[in-house]
Amino acid sequence: MLGSLFSPKNVAVIGASSKELSIGNRIIKNLVDFGFKGAIYPINPKSDTIRGIKAYNSILEVPETGGIDVVHLVIPAKFCPMAFEDCARMKVRHIIINSGGFSEVGPEGVEIEKKCMDIANKYGMRVMGPNCQGIINTDPDVRAYCNFTFTIPEPGYISLVVLSGGVAELIHQGVSEMGVGTRIYASNGNAVDVSIPEIIEYLGEDAPTRVIVTYVEGLRDAARFMRVARKVSKRKPILAMKAGRTREGAKAAASHTGGLAKEEKVTDLIFAKAGILSFADEGALIRAATAFASQPVPKGNRVGIITNTGGPAVISTDVLAADGLRIPPLGENTRKTLEQALLPEASVRNPVDVLATANGAHFRACLEAFMADDNFDLVYVNFVTPFFVDNENIAREIAAVSRRQEKPIVCNLMTDRRRMRAVEDILKDGGVPCFAFPSDAARAVSALVRYHAIQSRSAGKAVVFEDVDADAARRIVDTARKEGRMQLGAGEVNRLLECYGLPVPAWRIAETPEQAAAAAGDLGYPVVLKADAAGLVHKSDGGGVMLNLQDGKAVREAAADMRARIGIADMRFFVQKFHPPGLELIMGAKAEEPLGHVLMFGIGGIFVEVMKDVSFCLTPLSDAEADEMLSSIKGAPLLDGVRGGRGVDRAALSDTLLRLNQMVIDLPWITEMDMNPVTAYPDGVCVLDARISLSVVTAAGT
Amino acid sequence: MLGSLFSPKNVAVIGASSKELSIGNRIIKNLVDFGFKGAIYPINPKSDTIRGIKAYNSILEVPETGGIDVVHLVIPAKFCPMAFEDCARMKVRHIIINSGGFSEVGPEGVEIEKKCMDIANKYGMRVMGPNCQGIINTDPDVRAYCNFTFTIPEPGYISLVVLSGGVAELIHQGVSEMGVGTRIYASNGNAVDVSIPEIIEYLGEDAPTRVIVTYVEGLRDAARFMRVARKVSKRKPILAMKAGRTREGAKAAASHTGGLAKEEKVTDLIFAKAGILSFADEGALIRAATAFASQPVPKGNRVGIITNTGGPAVISTDVLAADGLRIPPLGENTRKTLEQALLPEASVRNPVDVLATANGAHFRACLEAFMADDNFDLVYVNFVTPFFVDNENIAREIAAVSRRQEKPIVCNLMTDRRRMRAVEDILKDGGVPCFAFPSDAARAVSALVRYHAIQSRSAGKAVVFEDVDADAARRIVDTARKEGRMQLGAGEVNRLLECYGLPVPAWRIAETPEQAAAAAGDLGYPVVLKADAAGLVHKSDGGGVMLNLQDGKAVREAAADMRARIGIADMRFFVQKFHPPGLELIMGAKAEEPLGHVLMFGIGGIFVEVMKDVSFCLTPLSDAEADEMLSSIKGAPLLDGVRGGRGVDRAALSDTLLRLNQMVIDLPWITEMDMNPVTAYPDGVCVLDARISLSVVTAAGT
Repeated sequence: MLGSLFSPKNVAVIGASSKELSIGNRIIKNLVDFGFKGAIYPINPKSDTIRGIKAYNSILEVPETGGIDVVHLVIPAKFCPMAFEDCARMKVRHIIINSGGFSEVGPEGVEIEKKCMDIANKYGMRVMGPNCQGIINTDPDVRAYCNFTFTIPEPGYISLVVLSGGVAELIHQGVSEMGVGTRIYASNGNAVDVSIPEIIEYLGEDAPTRVIVTYVEGLRDAARFMRVARKVSKRKPILAMKAGRTREGAKAAASHTGGLAKEEKVTDLIFAKAGILSFADEGALIRAATAFASQPVPKGNRVGIITNTGGPAVISTDVLAADGLRIPPLGENTRKTLEQALLPEASVRNPVDVLATANGAHFRACLEAFMADDNFDLVYVNFVTPFFVDNENIAREIAAVSRRQEKPIVCNLMTDRRRMRAVEDILKDGGVPCFAFPSDAARAVSALVRYHAIQSRSAGKAVVFEDVDADAARRIVDTARKEGRMQLGAGEVNRLLECYGLPVPAWRIAETPEQAAAAAGDLGYPVVLKADAAGLVHKSDGGGVMLNLQDGKAVREAAADMRARIGIADMRFFVQKFHPPGLELIMGAKAEEPLGHVLMFGIGGIFVEVMKDVSFCLTPLSDAEADEMLSSIKGAPLLDGVRGGRGVDRAALSDTLLRLNQMVIDLPWITEMDMNPVTAYPDGVCVLDARISLSVVTAAGT
Repeated sequence: MLGSLFSPKNVAVIGASSKELSIGNRIIKNLVDFGFKGAIYPINPKSDTIRGIKAYNSILEVPETGGIDVVHLVIPAKFCPMAFEDCARMKVRHIIINSGGFSEVGPEGVEIEKKCMDIANKYGMRVMGPNCQGIINTDPDVRAYCNFTFTIPEPGYISLVVLSGGVAELIHQGVSEMGVGTRIYASNGNAVDVSIPEIIEYLGEDAPTRVIVTYVEGLRDAARFMRVARKVSKRKPILAMKAGRTREGAKAAASHTGGLAKEEKVTDLIFAKAGILSFADEGALIRAATAFASQPVPKGNRVGIITNTGGPAVISTDVLAADGLRIPPLGENTRKTLEQALLPEASVRNPVDVLATANGAHFRACLEAFMADDNFDLVYVNFVTPFFVDNENIAREIAAVSRRQEKPIVCNLMTDRRRMRAVEDILKDGGVPCFAFPSDAARAVSALVRYHAIQSRSAGKAVVFEDVDADAARRIVDTARKEGRMQLGAGEVNRLLECYGLPVPAWRIAETPEQAAAAAGDLGYPVVLKADAAGLVHKSDGGGVMLNLQDGKAVREAAADMRARIGIADMRFFVQKFHPPGLELIMGAKAEEPLGHVLMFGIGGIFVEVMKDVSFCLTPLSDAEADEMLSSIKGAPLLDGVRGGRGVDRAALSDTLLRLNQMVIDLPWITEMDMNPVTAYPDGVCVLDARISLSVVTAAGT
């Protein structure tokens, strides 16, 4: 669908200008300078030629009967709808609106945007922007620089798609400055039509694109983004960064996009679930992209390190180990081989210090040993260029092994880049990613391994429990919503949980203190008594909960007292069997339109409140993800038992999370719920209290 | 003392060589090429000249009667002692041994090193190295490149001192590549004589050195390092990085230094106490150094942000906010001024988006507004260079304000560095540190603010309690050590704590179960009973502790039972008043020679065991540091009370830490002790159990 946007046969620029420092001139210049392989049509009623190319008075005069692939609009917003009509007559396929003055400036702009899109939709034209940089495609058969920026890329394998023109440029410059090529660049500004997910989908199919880089401040079409990214990330790595993580950053983002960004965690959950490699640092993201652009994906996390100087290898070892990579000792055979092949004073362990006096043959021997040894998945080379060895020869040996693409090779190159380019050029020519700092190089290695881990992780299975009564559950929710209640009563909550097989203690509803005592007798002492009335939410705050009541007298007195205190005449009583103490946990769910719900898990009390030690996952939750939620909190050892204590029933906990998952998927009207505490025992769990909030019925009746 | 090492008037090279690719040739070349202002004396019996400079058969023939400031030794280790003798005859002041083959290779090397040092000490010669790179001084009046590496620095204000030659080069190259100058470079390898602290002390006095950069794998002369760094860091920033933080990294470090590094936390504590800015990333360290080299230290943490593109400012805002910096809104006056001065569509808030179309005057107006506004301490500029504005003019305006050195200015420059140098050169000429990524620039800003915070923090006061009985305490320790006991008994521990006013429950020692019951009667029930015998440490493991005994019968039975179970005939009983539960805390101390002790604080149980939530500080502890120890654990809110609970007595906790501090300072023979639990109440604390280990008496009787 976007094929002719990214590989246009012809490009017209409405608003082409002969003024050197104008955007309408720059686009022509960029197309010409970059060697665009198609036809260029400057549209300007006042000039015959622009930059030596014949200009036309109107798009209507352009001599293309088969339609025009791309038209740039570099004219004031108010003239755009008229231009859209003209484009439709000329069978234009894609319009890139570089001009601003649309939704980002307020209501008038929104209005113009809508007018344009009405025309575009009517005639099947696609729109990139408005208020955008545009696209670049470095394909030698295309060379489309449909963009008014100034960085000139080399052809390569990194594609980037970013709303923000500033950040698109930042990444573009970063890649370019590393001397690494770009494949496709897309920056779509207000993104009124052609969207980030759509472009990612396109890049997924674009064979030369080996790695996709994106940046978001707030995801717009989150559901589609998730769907596309999950699919594409299986084929090639998607590297992403989310900004606006802090309150201050989100405010800054909202100010420049017009209020879309928010300070939230859900983007991280989307990235995680979609198999996207997430970065908190744009430099690290760019460096990782250059590694993916030229190196294979490793088959594991075991790194062999070659260095010709000691200290920097220590720095990289620290970073690799902290990132969970393994630096295994050399096997017997490899050690023997290297003792023969290297200088006598070389340090034959991992890291291998070949010494500053090592030559190309020493490096080569060491690389070959790591390639041949099944105990290593990738190789990290720290290469300083002393004046007394043939550094270009060393570089040639490293490049030769890299070209075989057997296992990834990443290099920290310590040299004087301003005076000695040859060594770096030889390495880059062999596809060896070169970095200037050991930590940076190590983090690029980590990224390769992270992608391997994502690719090889089990997504787990969906679990569907058959022993649920979805219809009864639905009726409980429907009834409450029809009655305009956004909060379920204690009895409703427990019935709902029971419908999904969630373990609750035995319970009764009673109308009077006498009935409450009778119910308690049925259940067996001790019991818990809770006030149950519409609108009564934070029960414990208002004295609405009494724990561990031991006999009928205690229940009667507590109930009478409760009614008097709360003062709601038609209040009922919720009587529940008292459960012994266990490990108190919290589980919850919060609707996150349009994706589903975010599920939450944590250990109760101070762990959640003080230590903020909680894990999250987006629905639908797989069994593997449920297990991950349990394992990824810091307090996880408590689940397995510490200080000689017994652990709790992890299988039952996982089961509880998966039932919760199924419940909120079936009942999207649940806006927010928590089960707190969920008490866990060595055998089983019990939901001792829960609250469920519902969405209001809308005018449409949903 | 090191003046003539770093500013030599003459340099001789013993082992100078006419072979192009030898170290003995390279040093001559470096001295010549860099324009050394003093005399150069190549020593080589086989050549008349080296690189066109007259060579001498022997150092003894050098025509210097006033002595020689620096002699390089580039000869095999075994010939070095002889060369030392010759040097002594020529009144050499400093010998830089570039050769390896000393302590890093094993016992023979150690022997040669010792021989050399004996001669050096006898004649008052100072030694740099062996196995080292050497020094560089870029002072225009000196220009001493006494080093065999290849990176050529520009004169500047950053000085670096690093044992590891590889990392010294790494930092040197990093600074150089940023186009920033270096002042002094010192890499001392095995550091047998001239040490890192000594060089830091020298650099502290060297006025043109504005910032000192160092890197360590394991600190050797930790006490001196601490003393010097505390003094120097008050005058100028010391930026440091410690590698070998992971087990794997420490192993790698040990392998290349010969076993000095260990995986430890104490270096971080030294850095913190010495006022050193610690970095975990060498790139971040180097970038911060370039900011310190040309910008003043800010007076606070309030950043004004100027940008001419939206997205990148969001990224930097995130980093600044996450690092605890403030991005305050614009004041009324500043806002009004900028609304007048900037383009109508500019976003006049903080960040200020002056727009891509902004010119130099707009940037200037914005900079002046931030300089004039007392609500801002520094300015962050994000500057993309669009083709349609006069970027050099913008750069000139920024540089002009930077030259006034009023408030720090840091710039993220988004440009095509490979094709457009002019803008960056103008900025750098004005001392504006320029970075290629917003996060990198933001972290450099953070570093400036961190140094301000260190400079302005209160070191706190030493607290000396007068109500202690140091003599009695000393006698307890002396007695145990004389008896060869490394572990104090329960009674001794409590007496020792009492000597320092540490709050323990009332207690008695009893010989028999009957006496124990009588003692319990004196103390009042309930009581705790502990077995008390030499060598009995982990009392609770062997059933040596009974809690909450309610009457005499219970005490008698428990004591009899305990004696039978433990089976030590002369066992005594420690009876202690039972204290009600409170918040359980842990405090401890561990000897860290030669610095003193590391003190530890944490909340007991899972907080320490599962969450590893503890804080540390080196003795001597000030009142401010005690407070910091309490505040810096994640669980600190528990001290103040959460979920409606009352907090505990922080003043008493601080007091307890300070008394512990005084005790271990007075009693350096305490190798390790812990007080666990220390129970804290709303009013007061109580040390319920403690263990103290002592060092053995050495042959010297200490």
